[in-house]
Amino acid sequence: MAEQAPDKITPRAEDYSRWYLDVIRQAGLAEPAEVVKGCMVIKPHGYAIWEKIQRALDDRFKETGHQNAYFPLLIPESFIKREAEHVEGFSPELAVVTIAGGQKLEEPYVIRPTSETIIGHFFGRWIQSWRDLPMLINQWANVMRWELRTRMFLRTGEFLWQEGHTAHATHAEAVEEVKRMLDIYAEFAEGHMAMPVVRGVKTDSEKFAGALQSFCIEAMMQDNKALQAGTSHDLGQNFGKAFDVKFQNKAGLTEYVWQTSWGVSTRLIGALIMTHSDDNGLVLPPKLAPVSVAIVPIFGKGGDEAAVREAGAAIEKELKAQGLSVVFDVRDHKPGFKYFEWEQKGVPLRLEIGPKDLEKNQVAAKDRLGTAKEFWPRANLGAHVKEHLDRFQTQLFDRAKERRAANTVKIDSWSDFKDVFAGDNSKFVLAHWDGSRETEAKIKEETKVTIRCIPFDSPDEPGKCVHSGKPSPRRVLFSKSY
Amino acid sequence: MAEQAPDKITPRAEDYSRWYLDVIRQAGLAEPAEVVKGCMVIKPHGYAIWEKIQRALDDRFKETGHQNAYFPLLIPESFIKREAEHVEGFSPELAVVTIAGGQKLEEPYVIRPTSETIIGHFFGRWIQSWRDLPMLINQWANVMRWELRTRMFLRTGEFLWQEGHTAHATHAEAVEEVKRMLDIYAEFAEGHMAMPVVRGVKTDSEKFAGALQSFCIEAMMQDNKALQAGTSHDLGQNFGKAFDVKFQNKAGLTEYVWQTSWGVSTRLIGALIMTHSDDNGLVLPPKLAPVSVAIVPIFGKGGDEAAVREAGAAIEKELKAQGLSVVFDVRDHKPGFKYFEWEQKGVPLRLEIGPKDLEKNQVAAKDRLGTAKEFWPRANLGAHVKEHLDRFQTQLFDRAKERRAANTVKIDSWSDFKDVFAGDNSKFVLAHWDGSRETEAKIKEETKVTIRCIPFDSPDEPGKCVHSGKPSPRRVLFSKSY
Repeated sequence: MAEQAPDKITPRAEDYSRWYLDVIRQAGLAEPAEVVKGCMVIKPHGYAIWEKIQRALDDRFKETGHQNAYFPLLIPESFIKREAEHVEGFSPELAVVTIAGGQKLEEPYVIRPTSETIIGHFFGRWIQSWRDLPMLINQWANVMRWELRTRMFLRTGEFLWQEGHTAHATHAEAVEEVKRMLDIYAEFAEGHMAMPVVRGVKTDSEKFAGALQSFCIEAMMQDNKALQAGTSHDLGQNFGKAFDVKFQNKAGLTEYVWQTSWGVSTRLIGALIMTHSDDNGLVLPPKLAPVSVAIVPIFGKGGDEAAVREAGAAIEKELKAQGLSVVFDVRDHKPGFKYFEWEQKGVPLRLEIGPKDLEKNQVAAKDRLGTAKEFWPRANLGAHVKEHLDRFQTQLFDRAKERRAANTVKIDSWSDFKDVFAGDNSKFVLAHWDGSRETEAKIKEETKVTIRCIPFDSPDEPGKCVHSGKPSPRRVLFSKSY
Repeated sequence: MAEQAPDKITPRAEDYSRWYLDVIRQAGLAEPAEVVKGCMVIKPHGYAIWEKIQRALDDRFKETGHQNAYFPLLIPESFIKREAEHVEGFSPELAVVTIAGGQKLEEPYVIRPTSETIIGHFFGRWIQSWRDLPMLINQWANVMRWELRTRMFLRTGEFLWQEGHTAHATHAEAVEEVKRMLDIYAEFAEGHMAMPVVRGVKTDSEKFAGALQSFCIEAMMQDNKALQAGTSHDLGQNFGKAFDVKFQNKAGLTEYVWQTSWGVSTRLIGALIMTHSDDNGLVLPPKLAPVSVAIVPIFGKGGDEAAVREAGAAIEKELKAQGLSVVFDVRDHKPGFKYFEWEQKGVPLRLEIGPKDLEKNQVAAKDRLGTAKEFWPRANLGAHVKEHLDRFQTQLFDRAKERRAANTVKIDSWSDFKDVFAGDNSKFVLAHWDGSRETEAKIKEETKVTIRCIPFDSPDEPGKCVHSGKPSPRRVLFSKSY
């Protein structure tokens, strides 16, 4: 990149949506494809974060007995139509291939918006007996949903994700799987992304098209809106019946299998940005940062450049031995340019080493949240850096959790509810709901607020619906959302 | 899976094509999708091999300074048409999206058959100055080429691959990159796949549509046909000009960039199968085997089952500590069933442990190429297994190299040439060629034989073309091919 003044990042307070796009641009995470409507290019820094996410989740999927496989991108159009709710949910968003190899196709193919149908078809071929169950499959893939309003990472025509698809002999086992995978998502969100989440179940009108029940994790972004960060669905026997996936049980009787599906996508990168970043750019948790530490050499006038290079390389080696991803930035740019760039890219820790530091046997250190430089002794630097990054990871999580606590309220009257959500405002609101689809729809229509989930930890607490005044057994989570 | 007699594998000598498909089925690598023409499902064991391939190659790409990114699946149809040779090469194989989100598209999109065009477009946006060069990008993705004749892994409508795309300031640097990546492919093929390859350059009629020159690695399969296992292209300024990718050089002048692209695909799994496997099923090199060692417990009548389980678990742990991927197969099947299954799946080494082995402080061992069981002492088993697998890897490579040497011949007369390739026969034939496209076409028409490459190590050796009798400066490599 030419050494030029980088573009500025719009402050959050001025224009939150603009800020989000500015952070993405300045960190080099992605850019709109423009020539392909609603799609984006994931640039190297963004893709490197996705690789970190993939590696961590994939390890957990495999530890819990899942195997990866790959199914066709194209799905016969008729497959989508076999499950009534599924077709209703996905039809409007399909991209359709009508010509291939120079010929018009007799039956068009759709580009997978999700793979329940095509995988259901193969489960039908692979599963005969209870001995074939559970079948635990995961796929890392691209999917396509033609959306009208797109926003990078959060909602794009094409996106990358993983989709788990499993089949079980009993409903109880399927439900156990749905919960297990939701827990893995929640632990990943909190442990790796440093992003606190609410676990819960979706209402009927918000659940996956074709599921009995959808479980989800919901996170609060910095504008206090909710972002659905992962879902895990109990599909019941709906797809088993649509694709004739039967097995012989131990008693010799033929039954339909019970299926689940669960997924997270590159949307998580959007969630990371909006959970931690600030007006200076991206902020990344060390566990997912492609670069954890940037070492910047200072070649002062008359200083011993060779000695600085040698010291920098030695530090790089020491930190790498700690398993950290490190860049020793010897590019031909001024230090200030490098500081600025690493800051915008969200590198958790910057170390500087110059002739004075060599004399004093120290390094200068500044972490991405810190306001002032510190000086750390050169001895045992590797271990010290590692400890510091662990604390940084915790600090990010605590900060996000405090922010969420400060912006979560219990509301019991409709006028208070409307006040909280006035204009573009949002919060996490715990309020009573009468359980009806009609009330949910009215609330959404009047305020753009949806029920994000019925939290698992919402205690039994009889009350009255915030909108209809009808009885309610417990509070649910309302918010505006992405 | 129900405990039933598995289907048999057709011997190679009886029907080589059938053998190939039988190995794939019995090893659980893939199956034809059928409902999606020419496409396949990559099943868990096949996908696990692909993951091993990905990990090893990706590490090498990153070591050599490349970064991963992700570009849109869909490409505006007009993009494909901008480079004259490119459109001619790929047009017949395109899958076209004409409807999206319920609307007919004004300009259709094609599903990427390869991404030179769309990536060229973005390089045009990202590259301004010599400081932006070299730009070294790689993408792991699915691509689609609507083929008439398909064969699993070797040629399918959709396949998975990686495509490297780089831009450079000079032609010399681009050519250096093209060679560097070909060398990485060749080292991977020989070092990891245990598959010897010939490195060389394609003739003009066999090169990539839009390239100045294509370098390739060619491997000999067990039917003595060639399989192109990887290609690396010098694109010159062809795509730079088509997509207006210019930069300001150090002298302040504007030039077009010099580009390269290079790729390998899931085809490598087909190459693995046809290089090493036998009439009993898959044979895998340890470096790419998802499971290197299968430990099978023998619970003899009256034996101490708990002690056998404990010993098996201890061995599993010891081998895992050596970095080996191990399965301790405690499934409720008879040992013979397990032996058979692991053999068909190509597991390099099987260990058995039963009450008698416990008494004697030993394990029974049989590797995938071995004819008889050996008994190895329990002490230091981990180190011993690791050494054995290293030798096994070398053994596979040597065996393949010997087979290739035995089936590579120099031919100087047209009648000998026709004899070698009579019927469905093939070999690697080193023969003289007059360098003309016409002669190449005639040879292909008369014998179905193509010039696989002009090997880099083909010495200067003036001679006469095997077909036309015209002068030739050196021998080239002829073979039938996949």
